[in-house]
Amino acid sequence: MKRILVIGAGRSSSTMIKYFLNQSQKENWLIRVGDMQLSFAQEKVGNHVNGEAFKFNALNAEERRKEISNSDIVISMLPARFHLEVVRDCIDLKKDVITPSYVTDEMKALNEQIIDAGIIAMNEMGLDPGIDHMSAMKILDEIEEKGGVVSGFESFTGGLIAPESDNNPWNYKFTWNPRNVVLAGQGGAAKFIQEGQYKYIAYNNLFRRTEIIEIEGFGKFEGYANRDSLRYRSIYGLENIPTIYRGTLRKIGFCRAWNIFVKLGLTDDSYVIEGSEDMTYRQFINSFLSYNSHDSVELKFRYQLRIEQDDYIWEKLVWLGIFEDKKVGIKDATPAQILQKILEDKWTLEENDKDMIVMWHKLNFKLNGENKEIRSYMTYIGEDQTYTAMSDTVGLPVAICAKMILNNKIKLKGVHLPIHKEIYLPILKELEDYGIVFKEREVQPVLYS
Amino acid sequence: MKRILVIGAGRSSSTMIKYFLNQSQKENWLIRVGDMQLSFAQEKVGNHVNGEAFKFNALNAEERRKEISNSDIVISMLPARFHLEVVRDCIDLKKDVITPSYVTDEMKALNEQIIDAGIIAMNEMGLDPGIDHMSAMKILDEIEEKGGVVSGFESFTGGLIAPESDNNPWNYKFTWNPRNVVLAGQGGAAKFIQEGQYKYIAYNNLFRRTEIIEIEGFGKFEGYANRDSLRYRSIYGLENIPTIYRGTLRKIGFCRAWNIFVKLGLTDDSYVIEGSEDMTYRQFINSFLSYNSHDSVELKFRYQLRIEQDDYIWEKLVWLGIFEDKKVGIKDATPAQILQKILEDKWTLEENDKDMIVMWHKLNFKLNGENKEIRSYMTYIGEDQTYTAMSDTVGLPVAICAKMILNNKIKLKGVHLPIHKEIYLPILKELEDYGIVFKEREVQPVLYS
Repeated sequence: MKRILVIGAGRSSSTMIKYFLNQSQKENWLIRVGDMQLSFAQEKVGNHVNGEAFKFNALNAEERRKEISNSDIVISMLPARFHLEVVRDCIDLKKDVITPSYVTDEMKALNEQIIDAGIIAMNEMGLDPGIDHMSAMKILDEIEEKGGVVSGFESFTGGLIAPESDNNPWNYKFTWNPRNVVLAGQGGAAKFIQEGQYKYIAYNNLFRRTEIIEIEGFGKFEGYANRDSLRYRSIYGLENIPTIYRGTLRKIGFCRAWNIFVKLGLTDDSYVIEGSEDMTYRQFINSFLSYNSHDSVELKFRYQLRIEQDDYIWEKLVWLGIFEDKKVGIKDATPAQILQKILEDKWTLEENDKDMIVMWHKLNFKLNGENKEIRSYMTYIGEDQTYTAMSDTVGLPVAICAKMILNNKIKLKGVHLPIHKEIYLPILKELEDYGIVFKEREVQPVLYS
Repeated sequence: MKRILVIGAGRSSSTMIKYFLNQSQKENWLIRVGDMQLSFAQEKVGNHVNGEAFKFNALNAEERRKEISNSDIVISMLPARFHLEVVRDCIDLKKDVITPSYVTDEMKALNEQIIDAGIIAMNEMGLDPGIDHMSAMKILDEIEEKGGVVSGFESFTGGLIAPESDNNPWNYKFTWNPRNVVLAGQGGAAKFIQEGQYKYIAYNNLFRRTEIIEIEGFGKFEGYANRDSLRYRSIYGLENIPTIYRGTLRKIGFCRAWNIFVKLGLTDDSYVIEGSEDMTYRQFINSFLSYNSHDSVELKFRYQLRIEQDDYIWEKLVWLGIFEDKKVGIKDATPAQILQKILEDKWTLEENDKDMIVMWHKLNFKLNGENKEIRSYMTYIGEDQTYTAMSDTVGLPVAICAKMILNNKIKLKGVHLPIHKEIYLPILKELEDYGIVFKEREVQPVLYS
């Protein structure tokens, strides 16, 4: 019986654990799920005969080594900063390990030790990063095999609300960590390359320099640039590609309204607002507006930000309740924390709401002297609030990869990402059985001149 | 013979050292000037019989203690972060000490030790902070003596170019540290209080929410908010004042143009531009503009930032040379460093240029049931590039204060700022002999309703 150790039973582990349990009889697996919160692990394992939930402190070296030594493969679903200690133990104890997180320089530095230990440390095996790599590499490899030369790669992913649950003017709800949504894009400019020129977008332009894409049956989306698109050049072997751009998707109209918060400074997390606890939402907003004893907060807001009262962003803002006399109730809160509170009142999922993942790629290439373009997209809607689209798309690649490693279908050793055909082809194929399907088509490229 | 130890002979020490030397015969002083750069000290002391220049490493504890023990008063003109060590030695060796820098919490914590040592540590004894405190406290104390209650205090200071040297479209040159000018306003919102309400201005609005003031004979200026106006409430004993606002002055039109750099992200100092060394100014600007193969950099710039070609800010931008094919020549430079380079090409003082200091206060108060307003301003033009307006206005208060301490005219012990009548009255009076004169007048207050 092979023993799978799952470290961390948070929201993104649900689908993965279900997959492991479902296949455990056929594959002869024992699934051991450890979490600081025993109840998290218990909920996910249930009464399954091949599952064991236990209380587990992954920061305790002794506990950790004991559990790892007693397993055949380790899945680390911990917050990214804790993976390294797990991987160090996996080297010592010669156990394969998978994480869905970005590979760090510290992890890369362990590559030789990992190879010497005869194990694989597979990283970036989730949705983004993860499915993005695999679905892009499939097209890139096909182009290369035909003799094409790739000249442009754009890729966008969004964690959104499913159309059937989309009932607010922002076309958005929090389907993932709200704090990350509020702080998105901060801390340096977004960086990419276009037609051979490095381009930078400052935070205060980020939500205005968006790209609009349309997906059949789902309407229009807009993408804002991710922090660093350039690292994908070396990962995908596209060192000399003239254009590479990655971004995050929202439904159209979101970014122009969000930019109002950026302009006012409401997403700032670097200082504390005086007397935040007893302040109302309305007073909070007013503290960012020029003083004027005559005009209402609404009028000052529209005047300062030049918003017409029939502009659609005005409807979005009013709907959020930012002008209401509701108490903030958080002591020593930053503007970002107060904004998050206001948003959580309105953007929290209702019981039956479902989330949706959208991923979209555009590849330009030259083949036999001709300019060509391939577009590929995937939309995927979650089942409920346990088996969300996010949990499925993060957890299934990890689970399938674990199965392949246990069955000796992946023979690579060392630190890896899912960019090799032997890895991505079978995973993408099995993902299709779960409804995670990319639709690919060649289109007439739009040329700039 | 009394011995004055001056630590640091940089640009802001010139006038102070000249003052000390000029009065040294009459007062029977020996002026010892120490600097890491011996030549700096030598230039300022010249051949004066009562002056001694020496090479001095103030970071070496042994050297420092030796010099301090051998003096009657210590003037620390070091960068602010080094004052604390000097003051600690002054406590041990029981020597009075003056700095022109903001008092820190660490300095305040030494108050009891300083009192026990029977010495004074006088801080914020320059221009801003310094002359601003003294000129404001004079009016505030006068209002209070008459029985008035202060309801509003606004204060602006600017280090600018003198009208006779003002020959560029920005009406600005670097008369002080260029890096501080480029980074001004970054790192959290500007914070003040208006009519009892806390107000915050985010960095990307800072240069748009300016206040315009006019000074007879000098035309219009604009002020943008300083980071923290609130600390002045406790310093000036105005804990319950409904309005307090401090800011920095520029000639009118500067801020709207500067805001273009903020909008584009050119003042960002948090990341490095790829290939900055071999890049031209034009390419640097282009890297912040949306890609478009047809339009010139100028056209893309005007379009993205919505600048009409006959707008005065366009003239300012073109004049700066931001579109020129000149090499940046700095390896791994941040946007802010590159912008500084571009600005230094144009904003560096010419040989005969003079600088100017402008300070402006507005005080609103109620006296016998009547609303009143006092305005006060000072303009001061430097002599040359050694005895600048900045050097005079920073150095003279320090020097006069030192004289008063040596002559036992200041009897206070402990950590102090120049907010007491016994200090500010004689200093302001002597500053007038040097042409640093405030013009004060009562005006009809403009009411909001």
